[in-house]
Amino acid sequence: MPQLLFRGFNVEDICQISKPLVDELAEICDCGTDNFILECLHSTSIFDGKVIETFPFIEVKWFERGLETRDLFSTSIAKYIQSLEIPEFEIAFSTFREDSYYVNGKRCFD
Amino acid sequence: MPQLLFRGFNVEDICQISKPLVDELAEICDCGTDNFILECLHSTSIFDGKVIETFPFIEVKWFERGLETRDLFSTSIAKYIQSLEIPEFEIAFSTFREDSYYVNGKRCFD
Amino acid sequence: MPQLLFRGFNVEDICQISKPLVDELAEICDCGTDNFILECLHSTSIFDGKVIETFPFIEVKWFERGLETRDLFSTSIAKYIQSLEIPEFEIAFSTFREDSYYVNGKRCFD
Repeated sequence: MPQLLFRGFNVEDICQISKPLVDELAEICDCGTDNFILECLHSTSIFDGKVIETFPFIEVKWFERGLETRDLFSTSIAKYIQSLEIPEFEIAFSTFREDSYYVNGKRCFD
Repeated sequence: MPQLLFRGFNVEDICQISKPLVDELAEICDCGTDNFILECLHSTSIFDGKVIETFPFIEVKWFERGLETRDLFSTSIAKYIQSLEIPEFEIAFSTFREDSYYVNGKRCFD
Repeated sequence: MPQLLFRGFNVEDICQISKPLVDELAEICDCGTDNFILECLHSTSIFDGKVIETFPFIEVKWFERGLETRDLFSTSIAKYIQSLEIPEFEIAFSTFREDSYYVNGKRCFD
């Protein structure tokens, strides 16, 4: 956590931006870089009867950190995605509840 | 958005129904067809020690549109899934928060 | 439902634990074993510029069943994951809303 789940991106592109992106996100979140998960989900998209390229979409799954951090976080992601010359992409944040999260089987929060 | 994430469906089947389905959903939502994402996630299912066919499941991710639209939306999806002679399937709706959604790095809603 | 979505696990490992795990989870939930879905999502993870093994993560998607059931459920999952000698893994529970869930196109709950 935080998890960045990418759909519609090349793995090579994410490799290229991964280090500076995670360094910057870790600073925003004030946590270690090894907390971050960057993961490309495999999928096939369809439109108008045909297989098409998947629209670039990033779902960030994490604990709630508030609007200000969210704005900074998405601005940082956007900067690196735009450096790949990907013109259109969307980012959505989803939250896990802290009392519904277990590390090695142990609940971390009351 | 809306995103229809399919698991346990053949891509060819979704291709076949995609155009009339999206036309109908766009009418229900009163928005353009190019807002819709149909995406098959790749997965492997397991039961009783063996790999099995994945149960047909559709997660719809969108902004909250209320019960009436949800009912119309799922009735439309069901009609097209049933036209493929798939007897059993489930649909779940998940919502994104509008203040947690960013287009090209810019938050769209306060 | 409940759905156990695995990322970062071998399908063979999940096959190996699937029967006793689902038997135990069905007892905890007081429901039939055929309600359970175990599904490995295909993905590729990246860190520090390179493709790495995906961190073992399980998202449980179900209806809200309360803290006590959640604790029992995750303890059971953890026991079987640890029997595979996987030292580190995380589990998060996400809930579907009952009025947003449709079986064969029919809403099950008001």
